[in-house]
Amino acid sequence: MSVTAAAGFRAAGVAAGLKSTGALDVALIVNDGPRSDAAGVFTSNRAKANPVLWSEQALAGGSARAVILNSGGANCFTGAFGFQTTHQTAERVAERLGIGAIEVQVCSTGLIGVGDETFRQGVLAGVEGCADALAHDSADDAAALRAAQAIMTTDSVPKQAIAHGADPATGDGYTVGGMAKGAGMLAPGLATMLVVLTTDAVADADVLDRALRAATRVTFDRLDSDGCMSTNDTVLLLASGASGATADEAGLTAAVTQVCDDLAQQLQLDAEGASHDITIEVRQAASEDEAVVVARSVARSNLFKAAIFGNDPNWGRVLAAIGTTDAAFDPYAVDVSFNGVRLCHAGEPDRPREEVDLAPRATHIVIDLFAGDATASIRTNDLTHDYVHENSAYAS
Amino acid sequence: MSVTAAAGFRAAGVAAGLKSTGALDVALIVNDGPRSDAAGVFTSNRAKANPVLWSEQALAGGSARAVILNSGGANCFTGAFGFQTTHQTAERVAERLGIGAIEVQVCSTGLIGVGDETFRQGVLAGVEGCADALAHDSADDAAALRAAQAIMTTDSVPKQAIAHGADPATGDGYTVGGMAKGAGMLAPGLATMLVVLTTDAVADADVLDRALRAATRVTFDRLDSDGCMSTNDTVLLLASGASGATADEAGLTAAVTQVCDDLAQQLQLDAEGASHDITIEVRQAASEDEAVVVARSVARSNLFKAAIFGNDPNWGRVLAAIGTTDAAFDPYAVDVSFNGVRLCHAGEPDRPREEVDLAPRATHIVIDLFAGDATASIRTNDLTHDYVHENSAYAS
Repeated sequence: MSVTAAAGFRAAGVAAGLKSTGALDVALIVNDGPRSDAAGVFTSNRAKANPVLWSEQALAGGSARAVILNSGGANCFTGAFGFQTTHQTAERVAERLGIGAIEVQVCSTGLIGVGDETFRQGVLAGVEGCADALAHDSADDAAALRAAQAIMTTDSVPKQAIAHGADPATGDGYTVGGMAKGAGMLAPGLATMLVVLTTDAVADADVLDRALRAATRVTFDRLDSDGCMSTNDTVLLLASGASGATADEAGLTAAVTQVCDDLAQQLQLDAEGASHDITIEVRQAASEDEAVVVARSVARSNLFKAAIFGNDPNWGRVLAAIGTTDAAFDPYAVDVSFNGVRLCHAGEPDRPREEVDLAPRATHIVIDLFAGDATASIRTNDLTHDYVHENSAYAS
Repeated sequence: MSVTAAAGFRAAGVAAGLKSTGALDVALIVNDGPRSDAAGVFTSNRAKANPVLWSEQALAGGSARAVILNSGGANCFTGAFGFQTTHQTAERVAERLGIGAIEVQVCSTGLIGVGDETFRQGVLAGVEGCADALAHDSADDAAALRAAQAIMTTDSVPKQAIAHGADPATGDGYTVGGMAKGAGMLAPGLATMLVVLTTDAVADADVLDRALRAATRVTFDRLDSDGCMSTNDTVLLLASGASGATADEAGLTAAVTQVCDDLAQQLQLDAEGASHDITIEVRQAASEDEAVVVARSVARSNLFKAAIFGNDPNWGRVLAAIGTTDAAFDPYAVDVSFNGVRLCHAGEPDRPREEVDLAPRATHIVIDLFAGDATASIRTNDLTHDYVHENSAYAS
């Protein structure tokens, strides 16, 4: 139960031949209204894929009635032909749904440079298949699941989440649901990550936009699996208003954040080749921004990440990483704990490393800077043989 | 032939039990003068090891007569006891050589957090062994080799280099020699890298300093094997003046750069677990700094590096990496070549990827930004199973 959990939404997922395995590869989400307010957050990479270039423009008016998504090709660096493919895809969806092309968001994921005539025909066939499928049981959990499966690339499982909110004036409830894909290249500014969130709350586009940005800032933006940033990242939030419940901004932000946090954790747990799910928590930082910078420096240290793979509580690599930042703290006055065992205190060895058990997947690093009262955490993964294998063999 | 190639220098390398294998682990380089001008470049990591804290201060006067180096322990985050160990080490060298402790540079490499009483006694025993060894054939190639071997950690081979210069007024020649260690954690601001350069040229400390900084800026600072920066990095340049030839700054800079470039290449070729030696060359950048930023963004992309390991000419990952920078260029107007084959032209696929042969170790990526006339290259390595293995098992 995810993108169809909120009233007013239908979904479809079909196999259009874009994946050589014959798996589902094109998904369509439709907002039947009565309202069509929408917001989006897109990759901050300057190299933006054609669907991102389209969708950012199309969403400028704060409205969207459908999202078409495909795996099996990123349609990035595919030139004017690739942009025409995106445009034609939106036009085809619009024709089938009887709406304007400008109300169609387009998302693609897969290899950069893939976007030839075969790809175009595959996506267009997928549009037809999805539009046909909408006639049958398209508002149920099974349809939502098919959509979530159709956007998977190296993901091993589909990712879905749901949360609830209520109109503070009337007590009437509303739902926020979402689906996500992404199993590598996770980094700030999003990641090879596609996320579609739906809600039946009544909310203006500017409220949706602020709620979505507040939510992604503390969830997806703090998931940094391998430091790489994708050209196709897109997070969309569509509101149908079908519940009749008006969302206040704080309540909507909380519900959207809950769904994003759930999905971000699912993305972390399914990161390519990972054997540890690592939370790096920085405490007593001078500011939240500095806490994020310090945590991220550790999350990006290949030496630290390889050590965790080897169940090695190598606190020296943590200190070497944080020493590269400009954050306010005394490098010789910090504490570092691994899974509750303080290995470094005031810049010197503390408890014996043998006390740390790194066998469980869940790994919790706490870095105490003694420089203020701000806290933040970054989620990351270890650097494993399987990561190298998956990412050296992906294109072949 | 390296640190003893220049007249006025002696070297020693002994086994003092710091390495569990019984291999050489303490080295001593002595400058017998007549001059003792010296310069150094130290890690920019804020977490500096005790020997770095000592050596930076000791070198403030621009003079050094000896360098003592150990592997088997970084003496970093070892507190006041660790600093006392460094101080005692310098004192012991000074006593044995009849010089002041302030004229002794100290370098350590190995695990962070290692620096207990056993470590201290090992280093001090190494000082005695080296001082004794100086009496025998200590100015020859064999002595220099032993010193180069004693600073190895995960290095598979010792690294040595040599170059020559001449006094432009008299034509009298001088020599620059050097040794280096470092096989991982290579990154800007140096790396777990110790380098000692010696010359018999006559040169003031400020000339040495400028020559050394100019040389490291275009050599060691552009070697970025895994993006990690060490707490112990040190590059020293000692001048004995024994040749009587006065070096002009340009000539000295050229000779020092030649030695540094040679050593940097040797470090790249011996990087932990690497199967490809990658040069990322950025052309037609708006400035040299921007060329470096763009090249480094690719050198730090785990996805790109894993693809090279898999012999996959994945130009999309190059574009995704450079798109994260602020450098001046149009992401849709760049060319990218792999080993001479242009795979991306003006932001679209160009030659077939099958034309690229990535089987050789040497890998040459050229990124043409069409934004100016500056060029720079970064050396890096691929991300391999062996890298993960070596860095997950290092501490155990």
